[in-house]
This record gives sequence, C-alpha cells and structure tokens, in this order.
Amino acid sequence: MGVILDKASRVPLYLQLTQVLVKKMNAGQYREYEKLPSERELCGMYELSRITVRQALQELEREGYIYKEHGKGTFVAPKSYNQRLVKLYSFTEEMKAMGKEPSTKVLSFQRLAVNERLAEKMGLDDQEDAYQVTRLRLADGEPLMYETSYLPARLFPNLTEKALTYRPMYDVFADDYQITVTKAVERFAATAVRAQEGAFLEMRENQPAMLIKRFAYQNKQLLEYTVSVARGDKFDYTVELT
Amino acid sequence: MGVILDKASRVPLYLQLTQVLVKKMNAGQYREYEKLPSERELCGMYELSRITVRQALQELEREGYIYKEHGKGTFVAPKSYNQRLVKLYSFTEEMKAMGKEPSTKVLSFQRLAVNERLAEKMGLDDQEDAYQVTRLRLADGEPLMYETSYLPARLFPNLTEKALTYRPMYDVFADDYQITVTKAVERFAATAVRAQEGAFLEMRENQPAMLIKRFAYQNKQLLEYTVSVARGDKFDYTVELT
Repeated sequence: MGVILDKASRVPLYLQLTQVLVKKMNAGQYREYEKLPSERELCGMYELSRITVRQALQELEREGYIYKEHGKGTFVAPKSYNQRLVKLYSFTEEMKAMGKEPSTKVLSFQRLAVNERLAEKMGLDDQEDAYQVTRLRLADGEPLMYETSYLPARLFPNLTEKALTYRPMYDVFADDYQITVTKAVERFAATAVRAQEGAFLEMRENQPAMLIKRFAYQNKQLLEYTVSVARGDKFDYTVELT
Repeated sequence: MGVILDKASRVPLYLQLTQVLVKKMNAGQYREYEKLPSERELCGMYELSRITVRQALQELEREGYIYKEHGKGTFVAPKSYNQRLVKLYSFTEEMKAMGKEPSTKVLSFQRLAVNERLAEKMGLDDQEDAYQVTRLRLADGEPLMYETSYLPARLFPNLTEKALTYRPMYDVFADDYQITVTKAVERFAATAVRAQEGAFLEMRENQPAMLIKRFAYQNKQLLEYTVSVARGDKFDYTVELT
C-alpha cells in the first residue's frame, strides 16, 4: 500500500507520484530491470486518475528512470555510466576507475585498402592500407560498446589481432610503436541499433544507441578513426560550457 | 546504368559501392529524402551479390547517409546540424549563423511548486515555485527540438509566456532581469522519442533522438534546468578532448 498523495499541494500530483516512485527505486524497493506495478495498480495504490499516472510514468521514462517494453509493462532502468567530456578518456581506464572489470573481444581484424571517402576522412592516400578492427567492449562481462576502428597500416606495421585482444589499444600504440594520442575529436549522434550490433550488445534492433565517431591524433597525425555504438540506456556524456 | 566496380582492387567491393553512392548523393543525383534503388536493383546495376549490397547499405546507414523505412525502402538522409561543444551556445544564434530563420512556439507555460527531486536538482527549497515552460524550436519552419524548462520563479518575477514567445530566453533574462548565463553543464544521452514529442517533431514514436539536459548558471546560481529532445537525424555534437 502506498502513501496517499497530497491533493491540496501546489506540487502537481504527477510530480508527487514521480517523487514517491524514485524514492522507492533509490531505496532498492524497486530494483534494476524489475517490473513496476501497472498503471491500473498505481491508480489504485495512490487514488489517482489514469491520466495522472500516465503523466508521471512518461516523466520518469523521459528522465531515464524507467523503460517500457511493448505489451509487457514498465521496468526500472539500469543506472548509466556518465562520461565527462573534458579530457582524453579510455574505456579501459574509465571502467577500472568505477571498479568494473573491462574486457575486449576482437570480432574481426583485417587489413584492407581504403576507399576515397575513408582516405579523405583519415588523411590517407587513396587505396592506402588500413587495419579494420571490430571490437566488443564489456564491463564485468556485460557488453556495452560495439566499435569499428580504422588504423593507418603504415603507422602500425605488423599489428596483430592478439595484441589488441590482450592490451588496450593505446597501450599497444605506446609500447609497441612509441605513439601517444595527444588529441581526439568526438562526434555524438543518437541512432537506432542495427540487428547485427544489437545481437552483440544484447539489444533489440532499433533500440536507441549513441553513435560516437572518434578521430584520435598524435599532434596532426591521425592515428585512429573509430565508430562506436554505445548502449543508449547505459551511457550518458557530460560537457561543461563557459 | 552505374559504373562497374573494380573486382581486382584491394578496396573491398562494399566500400567501393559506398563510395559510388556517396558521390551521387553529394552531386545531388540522389537528393535528401529521395528513395534509393532497391537492393535488387543495385545488385543488377553494379553486378554485385546481395550480401555486398547489403553490407554497403548498412555502412551508409551507420554513417548517417541513408535511412530505412520498414517495408518502403532506403532513403537519402537529410544533412545534420553539427553543434561544437566548446562554449555556450543558443539555438537562436546557432540557427541564424547557419542562415536559418529560428522560431519558437510556447506549447505550455505554468507556475508550479517543485517536488523534492526537482528542488534538489535545482538547488531550490522543497515546494518552491518554478515556471515550467514547454517550447518547440523550429528552423525555417521545420521542428527540431522539443524543450521543457524549469526556471526558479523567485529569479524571474512576472515572467510571461509572451516574453518567451517573441524573444530568446537568454535575451529575456538579460533585458528584463539583468541576469546573464555564465556557465552551462549539459548531459547527452540517446533516447527514443515519445508519441507526444514525436507529434510535434514530425517523428514516429520510438525513432532515435538526442536527450539533452542543460543546467545553466550565473556563477553558482542555477537559472535554468532544461530537458531537450532533439531529432536524432538532424543533430550531432562535436567535442575536442586533449
């Protein structure tokens, strides 16, 4: 049985209800991925109209506290990883800093000649060689990002799939090639996950994901062009503007 | 009739095909929102297998050049607005700088008492008054963002819906209240658009959108908490990390 809300308050009832539900989530009374009571049940528990309950749930969905599964109900969303966009960061280091165990699966590794478009993006000669590496990044065994990287082959002779499986990419750059990333430009867009990526990320096709294109440099030399698809419910990114 | 691709090249055939299609889009031969030839047609035009064509289309979709409409085919995506996240920006100014005519529709305007959760987020007292303003932002008449802002009522006495309809919010802050935004913190996440927002943004429910939470300050004083939903196909955001 829930508390009865204060109908005389100037705080709208739907905002009062969001408050009550967030408290229960924070207190662990409703846990991550757990199903919430149905709209009808919430109406009964708090003596509210369907419209008010729906408005509260929409608000919580928008704020990322809950998510809906079509025909199944409403569930408590997992907590997301917040990445502050201030300085260069690496998946491995960020996850370790949060007490998570990062790991990487190399899904494909090949050497190919780039087309004009990639060559232009990467400042390479047309048909120059690059490594194309697709990796799945996990934390505590949970898949979080699906990444495709292009690296100029000229800069990383004899790069192997094995090196990238066991060591962070930037460690391989530094240890094996004495190359350090000094700058990265990242471009963020919202996207829908594709079936193939979704299969690795344990998401259904078309669920929201963050698409991140990273261009990493040592001074003016491009070292890496990576397209990452990150689970939309697992990541957010913070930037400070002045 | 298309060019025949070079099967002897070390550039994979699917990358060659993406190249050809991007050139046609850039040359205006395929225009924004125009339907591309079907997979079967592309196979015939370029003498390619279905797998190769599909891989090329997936690549272009991932890069944001094209989008699929279930059961209808593949279409050329509109160009997106790129926002560089370096300093404070306003929708109005950014659109003007790009030669677009910005406009704003105030969808709702009310004064309410905040709940604990909002109070905590905004550094207000529990049950303190705030204005809740929902606005649709357009450029050249095209709806791009759906924004809900909360402003502490104490800082903006006698704020009216009319003021926010005809002037940019930060101009109202400056002209009517001598208040200037000096810092903003923004949090980006990928989300699925809700039916109600989609109706305003001319998107179908669950299409990808960028969710941006902005906290704007004058020194340490919070002036504004805004949740924006931006069309996923229309915006991307660039940040430079060193």
